[in-house]
Amino acid sequence: MTKLVLISRDFDLSHLAPAILRAAPELEVTLHGREDAADAEVAVCWNPPVGAIAALPKLRLVHSIAAGVDNILTDPSLPGVPVCRVVDPRHARGMSEFVTWGVLHFHRQLDRVISNQRDENWFRPEQRDPSTCSVGVMGLGEIGSRVATDLHRRGFAVRGWARRARDLAGIETFEGSQGLEPFLQGTEILVCLLPLTDETRGILNARTFDALRPGAKLIHVGRGEHLVPGDLLSALNEERISGAIVDVFPNEPLPRGDSFWRAKNMIVTPHMASVASPDTIGLQVAENVRRLVKGEALHNVVDVAQGY
Amino acid sequence: MTKLVLISRDFDLSHLAPAILRAAPELEVTLHGREDAADAEVAVCWNPPVGAIAALPKLRLVHSIAAGVDNILTDPSLPGVPVCRVVDPRHARGMSEFVTWGVLHFHRQLDRVISNQRDENWFRPEQRDPSTCSVGVMGLGEIGSRVATDLHRRGFAVRGWARRARDLAGIETFEGSQGLEPFLQGTEILVCLLPLTDETRGILNARTFDALRPGAKLIHVGRGEHLVPGDLLSALNEERISGAIVDVFPNEPLPRGDSFWRAKNMIVTPHMASVASPDTIGLQVAENVRRLVKGEALHNVVDVAQGY
Repeated sequence: MTKLVLISRDFDLSHLAPAILRAAPELEVTLHGREDAADAEVAVCWNPPVGAIAALPKLRLVHSIAAGVDNILTDPSLPGVPVCRVVDPRHARGMSEFVTWGVLHFHRQLDRVISNQRDENWFRPEQRDPSTCSVGVMGLGEIGSRVATDLHRRGFAVRGWARRARDLAGIETFEGSQGLEPFLQGTEILVCLLPLTDETRGILNARTFDALRPGAKLIHVGRGEHLVPGDLLSALNEERISGAIVDVFPNEPLPRGDSFWRAKNMIVTPHMASVASPDTIGLQVAENVRRLVKGEALHNVVDVAQGY
Repeated sequence: MTKLVLISRDFDLSHLAPAILRAAPELEVTLHGREDAADAEVAVCWNPPVGAIAALPKLRLVHSIAAGVDNILTDPSLPGVPVCRVVDPRHARGMSEFVTWGVLHFHRQLDRVISNQRDENWFRPEQRDPSTCSVGVMGLGEIGSRVATDLHRRGFAVRGWARRARDLAGIETFEGSQGLEPFLQGTEILVCLLPLTDETRGILNARTFDALRPGAKLIHVGRGEHLVPGDLLSALNEERISGAIVDVFPNEPLPRGDSFWRAKNMIVTPHMASVASPDTIGLQVAENVRRLVKGEALHNVVDVAQGY
């Protein structure tokens, strides 16, 4: 019987055990810290404590419960076993819902309208055609491509940026470090959906904000560590960025008293843009464990060297 | 040379003259109240003063500048000439943008998240599948059908209600007064896109609100006169309606001090959901005047008896 261990330093993952067992009743599931966890062959993780994975001598597979794996790969003691992630089609749809909401919020100036309501101020914003509104999507993986394509279908002028060039119908794409500046210069609403790697850490910084069109907007649904907080706060104060929706933070939950809560023209959302459902996590983990046992190719294996 | 007169009691329509003349340089365009307006053959209107249209002895056509014509048909002295409206495909898209924003705002609980931000309260709302969220669209004309179809494509459980039954792929439709109650009972987010007629005036009342699922939401983008203001204010106070986005009011601009500005869980938007562009108005008015002169069938003629 294959044993799985659920490991996280800051989230209670115990709710995932029933979903995994529904999908694969033949498995045994335990929690990190329990005595019977030492001989687990599969680690199912979100933010595992450093060294916790390396401490499992029988380990054959590490599985993230999300699309992101940076929470695992940052552990320098990670052993050389395959790392897989969850790719939930509904996860991409949830992200598209959230980003579409944010883009429409800015495009139709609902941020301004809602703030005018406090002053009982009837102000009709100009209704621009979406084709005149340039949305720049950073990160064109499974989720970024879906988000970009959905916005393109809504009539927005969508451009994308990724490490490698991508071919997406109707979307102008830019690649690599030499493509970043031209990508940003034409962007009015910037959407960050990048994976977190050494190359992308801190990419949302003053230089990036300065390259955008003046008064641009930011929708950040990547990872907390993409953002240099002080640079965004300055850009908001000086209205170089005239609105931001930020869903991810280096410290979550965002502590009370943090400057972001009351920053100018900033909407703080609680890392809610999209999460995979327990049922999907259960099904995909179960399928990969079956494949591991049978010696078949695993699904959604991460390139550890590349970081995603 | 055919003469047009622009008539409104509360809006300055003079900006439409250049757009009409760009589309049809052979026309003559004047404004209501000017001496040369008396022999106009075409009246282009938004909220014309009662009797202003009847005072034009040579009148052959009345054209609304929008999809709505209630602003014209309420004049009891309206002469028996054709009444046309503007049908702008971008108008339907704009309405779909606005309603999609509102539905996502409620579905993803952004109303609650934004209000939590003021208390520095990190609260992650449950992420429900859109198929579990029932959106009820009242009014299934050009615009309502487009809005309902777009929401269905996003995965929402969409139902529709109209005077006559409609056949829309994937959307359960209800018809007439006997269909209203069952339609409302299954609705969680109610969207009003009805035309204003004697049957629909005051339809957003306490009885309607009580028939919805408890804690339902309202997105009202129809006409101000659909709504009984006191009934909505009560329903909001008692949380029978737990959120409302209202874009249209009997008196616009909404006066300072009006209770709506500070009503509980209410977003006031300034009749901005969607407007036709001056270019589209110019093109469609010009085309209909050409057809009138040539004796051809007019586009988008309103059934005056029916009211839309």
